[in-house]
Amino acid sequence: MASHIQKFKIALCQLLVTSDKERNIARARELIEDAALKGSKLIVLPEMWNCPLSLQNLSKYAEDIDAQDSPSISMLSEVAACHEITIIGGSIPEKANGQLFNTCCVLGPDGQVKAKHRKLHLFDIDIPGDTTFRESDTLTAGDTPTIVDTDVGSIGIGICHDIRFPELAMLYRSRGAHLICYPGAFNMSTGELLWELMQRSRAVDNQLFVATCSPARNPNAESDYMIWGHSSLVGPFGDMIATTGHDEATVAGEIDYSMIHSRRENLSLAEQRRGVIYKTVDVLGQIA
Amino acid sequence: MASHIQKFKIALCQLLVTSDKERNIARARELIEDAALKGSKLIVLPEMWNCPLSLQNLSKYAEDIDAQDSPSISMLSEVAACHEITIIGGSIPEKANGQLFNTCCVLGPDGQVKAKHRKLHLFDIDIPGDTTFRESDTLTAGDTPTIVDTDVGSIGIGICHDIRFPELAMLYRSRGAHLICYPGAFNMSTGELLWELMQRSRAVDNQLFVATCSPARNPNAESDYMIWGHSSLVGPFGDMIATTGHDEATVAGEIDYSMIHSRRENLSLAEQRRGVIYKTVDVLGQIA
Repeated sequence: MASHIQKFKIALCQLLVTSDKERNIARARELIEDAALKGSKLIVLPEMWNCPLSLQNLSKYAEDIDAQDSPSISMLSEVAACHEITIIGGSIPEKANGQLFNTCCVLGPDGQVKAKHRKLHLFDIDIPGDTTFRESDTLTAGDTPTIVDTDVGSIGIGICHDIRFPELAMLYRSRGAHLICYPGAFNMSTGELLWELMQRSRAVDNQLFVATCSPARNPNAESDYMIWGHSSLVGPFGDMIATTGHDEATVAGEIDYSMIHSRRENLSLAEQRRGVIYKTVDVLGQIA
Repeated sequence: MASHIQKFKIALCQLLVTSDKERNIARARELIEDAALKGSKLIVLPEMWNCPLSLQNLSKYAEDIDAQDSPSISMLSEVAACHEITIIGGSIPEKANGQLFNTCCVLGPDGQVKAKHRKLHLFDIDIPGDTTFRESDTLTAGDTPTIVDTDVGSIGIGICHDIRFPELAMLYRSRGAHLICYPGAFNMSTGELLWELMQRSRAVDNQLFVATCSPARNPNAESDYMIWGHSSLVGPFGDMIATTGHDEATVAGEIDYSMIHSRRENLSLAEQRRGVIYKTVDVLGQIA
């Protein structure tokens, strides 16, 4: 693994997303530049930060990242290189081969796209009389987990519903992740019940840092999908290091990876696992 | 699987444990009988309910369950048969073949021991200047997970530190558990940070019920291990159905297994898993 800094500032940009894509890109740039100027070395954006969270809108806002026809990722690339920072680029709708993906790009301090994560677990829910939401009608799921060696540690990526699957976090832990970043946009009901619970349990079960970044709640949104907000940074003992409410805000916190080592030295869950009883298999990791 | 009732009352007896074993057994009987008379069909006792939580005491209080030389389990057997209830018998120190185990017996309404779970994950922690506790110096770990078909559903068993391992809960879920019972005795620091978090995340990740039962906090205990308490019943959406503070109390709640089916119908985490990326292997289940 590449050498990396142990202690640094992270910023989670809880952007207020509107239906105006150019405005979203400009505003994201402002928040990122402001955080970089205040010393953040790693910056995380929300899920679907360039467009409103509404499935019928996605193709209109989608960009072809591989063809380098992506104003959203171009902006991230410029600002990453300019400030020499790492950016976990939340997600945007990606079009590729006639399909739509929910995709997170990771930009390095040289402005290059270091990794591209396509949401692995699409959110299909049907609670009669309450919530019906079927991402899989519109989106295609990715097929590979994404863990990136960066200047600021080994970072696993998950998007929103990906956080509901403990196996993915365990896989990242087994591949050496120090931090898992989950751009996400939980709604009001799952947000209140599960948002904090999921990030704290993924952190404490795997003894690593977890950062989440949600869009801000937009009370004037046309969609009836109301966003929970509460972007947060959680430490390896499940401790909430920094968080916020539902308005636009940048959550800044300090990550100190030596806490991972000390936690694991005090209580090594990995060593205490009972491999004679259960095993978690990293299917692609085995093949690779 | 045997047919079982779908909806019933469960009681968690958060017993105040003293150094007087006979008193502990008598008091446990009182709490169980009281809960049975109030209609509970399933009753859960705390971890180490017949002795104080101090490693050097365990052998003094230990009983040979297989040799039927166990006043604690005899009492549970009598009261289960008398009231025709199922009892998850918390745990007691068990001596067998010159070794000590931390063991939970499950008693059926005929008074028979239906299963015996030996704690799988021993709690060894060393935080210099704060907490040092090494169960593995005194106890031997069990080697098999325990899931029991009962009149009140398919129940997986874990003892205290077993709850820290998501794989065990996932294994029980894959074997068809409706409910996982964790007798446990978290201390003040892990209790505040992790007790509720762990039970809610095991429940919501596996879309099943979780019940925990702790001893009451004893302010006069000789040991400096102060117990958190807060025995709780959690539903399949991570919802806290019933809980309590740290004093002696019986927590009563209603379990309705139809909630499991409706949750899984609305949002099937099992179907949404990505078996091409990760797999959790039930090692002994595969061999059996």
